Amino acid sequence: MENWFGEKQTDDVMLSMKYDRILFHKKSKYQMIDLIENKTYGKVLFIDNTFQLTERDEFIYHEMLAHIALFSIERPKKVLIIGGGDGGLARECLKHDIDDLKLVEIDEDVVNVSKKFLPSLSVSFNDSKMKIFIDDGAEFIKNSNEKFDAVLIDSTDPVGPAAVLFETEFYNNIKKILNNGGIVGTQSGSPFMFPEHLKKAYGNMRKIFNFVKVYTATIPTYPGAIWSFTFASSNDIIRKREVNVKTKYYNEKIHDCNCNPKFIDDIVQ
Amino acid sequence: MENWFGEKQTDDVMLSMKYDRILFHKKSKYQMIDLIENKTYGKVLFIDNTFQLTERDEFIYHEMLAHIALFSIERPKKVLIIGGGDGGLARECLKHDIDDLKLVEIDEDVVNVSKKFLPSLSVSFNDSKMKIFIDDGAEFIKNSNEKFDAVLIDSTDPVGPAAVLFETEFYNNIKKILNNGGIVGTQSGSPFMFPEHLKKAYGNMRKIFNFVKVYTATIPTYPGAIWSFTFASSNDIIRKREVNVKTKYYNEKIHDCNCNPKFIDDIVQ
Repeated sequence: MENWFGEKQTDDVMLSMKYDRILFHKKSKYQMIDLIENKTYGKVLFIDNTFQLTERDEFIYHEMLAHIALFSIERPKKVLIIGGGDGGLARECLKHDIDDLKLVEIDEDVVNVSKKFLPSLSVSFNDSKMKIFIDDGAEFIKNSNEKFDAVLIDSTDPVGPAAVLFETEFYNNIKKILNNGGIVGTQSGSPFMFPEHLKKAYGNMRKIFNFVKVYTATIPTYPGAIWSFTFASSNDIIRKREVNVKTKYYNEKIHDCNCNPKFIDDIVQ
Repeated sequence: MENWFGEKQTDDVMLSMKYDRILFHKKSKYQMIDLIENKTYGKVLFIDNTFQLTERDEFIYHEMLAHIALFSIERPKKVLIIGGGDGGLARECLKHDIDDLKLVEIDEDVVNVSKKFLPSLSVSFNDSKMKIFIDDGAEFIKNSNEKFDAVLIDSTDPVGPAAVLFETEFYNNIKKILNNGGIVGTQSGSPFMFPEHLKKAYGNMRKIFNFVKVYTATIPTYPGAIWSFTFASSNDIIRKREVNVKTKYYNEKIHDCNCNPKFIDDIVQ
């Protein structure tokens, strides 16, 4: 008898993976957390039965969210991550010469499961520049007196608890804690499967910021696989520095290309 | 009791879709052909239990294979398609001002299933510029006395019957039937899941042609989702004309960007 764990991307489309045993299963205060190990993808983290990350393809998501923002800033020194309790996005940020990285994760169990099972991501927790807060990201930002060069939002999709992270009020509060030339970046969902997610993130950012740019990358384990990331700033978002970090997906050409599939241009026009 | 039809992308990863009934199921002379209808993706064609196309995402594959090649030619007049019996690639080619389109499909049943169930693809069969041959593509090319501006290979992967379409001998025979400045283009598999497929196509084309270029696109229903296309010519492959066709994925920026994820640059370096 084989065990398969999967995500129903829609009512009638499912991506599933075989596993020997469930390494972790817990209904945390906020969500259901599951971790399996799969031969093809390595360890796979599910939140509320949706793919959160796999060891094999997480580099794509984390590199694209971190480096598009940080290479568009001349000297990023202070970075704030909302969500991202697995540590993968932090790992990419720490490849830059920053002074200070704060991560605000609402669910302590995500941090703990990563510490225990995902060393290639949670390695970032050992960095002395990093500080983790177990807190509500929207509240943290509202109450913050600090300013940041980049705020990166590594959240679940804008349905359920993370919906507030795609609202104008949230983006407005971020604007207040951004340094001059600072950038906010967020994952903005699957433009192929759920174009309304990108429309919402993009539309609301446009209300608050002068410059908004959408990038895409392929995340094999996410619904529709074409994934969108939206970045906003009071300045134009262009690469300001040579790429001097080791990556597997992101590179200068991808940063500079400014090319999205036609149907995505149509969503955000 | 629900019915699900899927593809095992590897031994332990599966993408599956729910359907009400199987619209077509036949072991043809060459392969197993299945057609289902799914609420999210529309009609879905499987060959030997692998996703061949879906009505919802086929535009990506067909646009990227057709237009990168044809917009890199100043006046493409004669085009040859190997495979592609569903008619989708032909539909995209016919958006160009060509005189003559030949399509060589080995399996008549693929043509017939498309005629009956996939009108948005097989619409191309009604075009008077198009001629379909039920024949072995490799043999057709070996024996051809005609010359073409573009040869496009819309095949299954280089395992099993289509393996010969990724060999040096085949590319060499194509070179002989290409006009000056002519281009050959092929799908070259999933660089994320099966990098050896791209390595083979690219490596063998490099032995025969001076200029070889790899493009990628996201095909949500294919293994690994990041898909590669490899184009070769005796001339440099750059866009020669303004994009004047209606598309949903392909556009000028994508054609001109020359940007692949780092791990794909590493495969073809």
